[in-house]
Amino acid sequence: MLEQLKKEVYEANMDLVAKGMVIYTWGNVSGIDREKGLVVIKPSGVDYATMTWEDMVVVDMEGNVVEGKYKPSSDTPTHLVIYKAFPETGGVVHTHSTYGVTFAQAGLDIPAFGTTHADYFYGDIPCTRDLTAQEIEEAYELNTGNVIVETFAGKDPMAVPGVVVKNHGPFAWGRTPAGAVYNAVVLDKVAEMAYNTMTLNPRTKRVQQYLLDKHYFRKHGANAYYGQGSEDH
Amino acid sequence: MLEQLKKEVYEANMDLVAKGMVIYTWGNVSGIDREKGLVVIKPSGVDYATMTWEDMVVVDMEGNVVEGKYKPSSDTPTHLVIYKAFPETGGVVHTHSTYGVTFAQAGLDIPAFGTTHADYFYGDIPCTRDLTAQEIEEAYELNTGNVIVETFAGKDPMAVPGVVVKNHGPFAWGRTPAGAVYNAVVLDKVAEMAYNTMTLNPRTKRVQQYLLDKHYFRKHGANAYYGQGSEDH
Amino acid sequence: MLEQLKKEVYEANMDLVAKGMVIYTWGNVSGIDREKGLVVIKPSGVDYATMTWEDMVVVDMEGNVVEGKYKPSSDTPTHLVIYKAFPETGGVVHTHSTYGVTFAQAGLDIPAFGTTHADYFYGDIPCTRDLTAQEIEEAYELNTGNVIVETFAGKDPMAVPGVVVKNHGPFAWGRTPAGAVYNAVVLDKVAEMAYNTMTLNPRTKRVQQYLLDKHYFRKHGANAYYGQGSEDH
Amino acid sequence: MLEQLKKEVYEANMDLVAKGMVIYTWGNVSGIDREKGLVVIKPSGVDYATMTWEDMVVVDMEGNVVEGKYKPSSDTPTHLVIYKAFPETGGVVHTHSTYGVTFAQAGLDIPAFGTTHADYFYGDIPCTRDLTAQEIEEAYELNTGNVIVETFAGKDPMAVPGVVVKNHGPFAWGRTPAGAVYNAVVLDKVAEMAYNTMTLNPRTKRVQQYLLDKHYFRKHGANAYYGQGSEDH
Repeated sequence: MLEQLKKEVYEANMDLVAKGMVIYTWGNVSGIDREKGLVVIKPSGVDYATMTWEDMVVVDMEGNVVEGKYKPSSDTPTHLVIYKAFPETGGVVHTHSTYGVTFAQAGLDIPAFGTTHADYFYGDIPCTRDLTAQEIEEAYELNTGNVIVETFAGKDPMAVPGVVVKNHGPFAWGRTPAGAVYNAVVLDKVAEMAYNTMTLNPRTKRVQQYLLDKHYFRKHGANAYYGQGSEDH
Repeated sequence: MLEQLKKEVYEANMDLVAKGMVIYTWGNVSGIDREKGLVVIKPSGVDYATMTWEDMVVVDMEGNVVEGKYKPSSDTPTHLVIYKAFPETGGVVHTHSTYGVTFAQAGLDIPAFGTTHADYFYGDIPCTRDLTAQEIEEAYELNTGNVIVETFAGKDPMAVPGVVVKNHGPFAWGRTPAGAVYNAVVLDKVAEMAYNTMTLNPRTKRVQQYLLDKHYFRKHGANAYYGQGSEDH
Repeated sequence: MLEQLKKEVYEANMDLVAKGMVIYTWGNVSGIDREKGLVVIKPSGVDYATMTWEDMVVVDMEGNVVEGKYKPSSDTPTHLVIYKAFPETGGVVHTHSTYGVTFAQAGLDIPAFGTTHADYFYGDIPCTRDLTAQEIEEAYELNTGNVIVETFAGKDPMAVPGVVVKNHGPFAWGRTPAGAVYNAVVLDKVAEMAYNTMTLNPRTKRVQQYLLDKHYFRKHGANAYYGQGSEDH
Repeated sequence: MLEQLKKEVYEANMDLVAKGMVIYTWGNVSGIDREKGLVVIKPSGVDYATMTWEDMVVVDMEGNVVEGKYKPSSDTPTHLVIYKAFPETGGVVHTHSTYGVTFAQAGLDIPAFGTTHADYFYGDIPCTRDLTAQEIEEAYELNTGNVIVETFAGKDPMAVPGVVVKNHGPFAWGRTPAGAVYNAVVLDKVAEMAYNTMTLNPRTKRVQQYLLDKHYFRKHGANAYYGQGSEDH
């Protein structure tokens, strides 16, 4: 079942490795079929070198395995919370990419310093609050999703399609699994540029709002004119 | 038409990727045929992996598409301003390379700290002023070109063949499309070395004027003696 | 003799190069057969490009060569001390990997700042004290092992399977030679992330104990639920 | 003539590229035949991709071209001064490698912080003084050699086989062209580690003299016991 989506999710997981976002098994990508209410996700801790598209696991929206010989990623509950709360998402990614983790560990938002950032993220990429000991003990992965959703209260999650979870690392999402990977790669690259900028000049100010607006809306929304058509991921 | 120039521009775009200056579609190279008054430029947002030399777009000096099935790069008006103002340029490059963007975001010139820099750039690589909200709203890409030209008022643009646009990223140019790419690669490398130097020793002074002179004129101009002939890009 | 272990040790040494932990001959991996009381280790200073599994050297627990045409790694006495003191280790690795050496030279523990670290190391990765002049003169490599063991007095070496030796570099260990290499790679990656975190925000605090507990025990021990089975290296 | 040495020098130049020390034509290696009093060196500004061993240029000790269709590297006079002053050298290398240049631009010696450094360089790798305007105008490349020799007055150049020339970049040497490249690679790697160490902990002290002694003499000289024989480069 869901052969096409399994292949997309598999390809997106492999692309994450090819783009240098993941070593060993330190990442996972999922995709959703919203009509059927099913999510396809990478199995937990399986080696990328031997994994095939048929190893992808199908779960329902409560995380029950519907098909698959492997256990799904241990981060599955986090993915499900994101799909439920952000209805436009078609794919979700989690990585431990170096610069995303750097900001997560430092407990800092990734500031919007320039147009590279603004082309894909309409404002700072936020860092969540700490999870409490109780939240971690009771339902760690579920509450990781909840704290992400809480961080986006009142905001459009498709305008800033990523977050760094405090002391943990980045999650990103998109309209497709491939789009989610694209956003995860951009998140790490703009985090690297922001790290460089802040260590070079700690007093650097954020990009002006009107330049942020210009670049974001040059690529996204009704008046976009970059590319040959829609550039939304 | 312009088959040879299209091939040169295509090769220069691909070299930008091979040199690690670009991920995804984050860069563009153009070349000019000054006799015909036509510019060949990369199409907007087309994947490098599938792009061919025949996908290059031909525009006139007002940016009208003369030939090509794709829309030209959205940065085309910036390229055209540079060609009009700097008559010796044969190629123009725009990237979001990591260290060029770092200085653009920090709002700092890339200081001439050593001979690696001096071999190609005769002095600091300047950072432009901020564009105003009005300049961005009225004609963003055109005014990006204008602020570059303004930054070089009274200076020789072939002696310092590159710039970082505030909060945005580098533009570089050269006598050919390949030469422009060469200068874009050097810009990022000397920016990396300058970043390292400034974070290691914030009180570092610029290279002495006589060493700057020696290295620049060892490679450029009538008395050059480096290489087997002209090294000018 | 010990053909299987020689192959494992050879593969682990080659993987160290493939993972970018080693240039030239700057690293070594060993493995132990605890029943026979024999250790297989890389020969000293032999080029990785021409080395074969049959070049691995077999030594007894006093470091006497039992089989092999080459001299064993000069660090063999350090490996032997680790095997004797930490009875669960099946493999030991030494590298001069860039970020591990950075902390060794700075004389700092690698702080546990996040879940990437906590997934494999249950707390800070310690930096040893200085060796004394006498310790170095009398038995340098042996005393390097001794100062590592001293650093872990009262601690579980399998919970923090690595160390940085002051002014020198990292040693890591694991249940197998491959597991030791895995831990050496993780040590360098979390050291890189910690370096970035500390230079970005010098006031960063360590990860909370309850998040450290959660991530470590999600992967290790009786209640582990990450992966398809045991993830212990 | 000198076919074997030409091949060695060619291979050493190509290895410099393979090891990531050089982009474009930013480096050169030479080798000497001391019996014949002839030096073989890379031609100036020739593309590595098309260069063959037969393109190497033979010069005498005054820099006159004895054989070769190309002009020799413009740095040839610097190489010759080093060969004349340091009689044990068989190969000389110049690069603009990133971390070597970082220290050259910052005007700082590369401090001996650890055993990675001590294994190859017996003490700090010095940064030369500034050349004067007169020295640059009169005989730039010759005086670059002279200031290197001056920096090593009273020191053994084979114990510290490299230097960074102020505001310029590294030179390294060795007993063979391949050995010189090895030392140039080590210089850049220990410079990177030193950069990291100093930015992480600006108050870091140098390695203790007795550990420096131990590691250096473990690999070099009459009592060396690392490797299968001599490790001297």
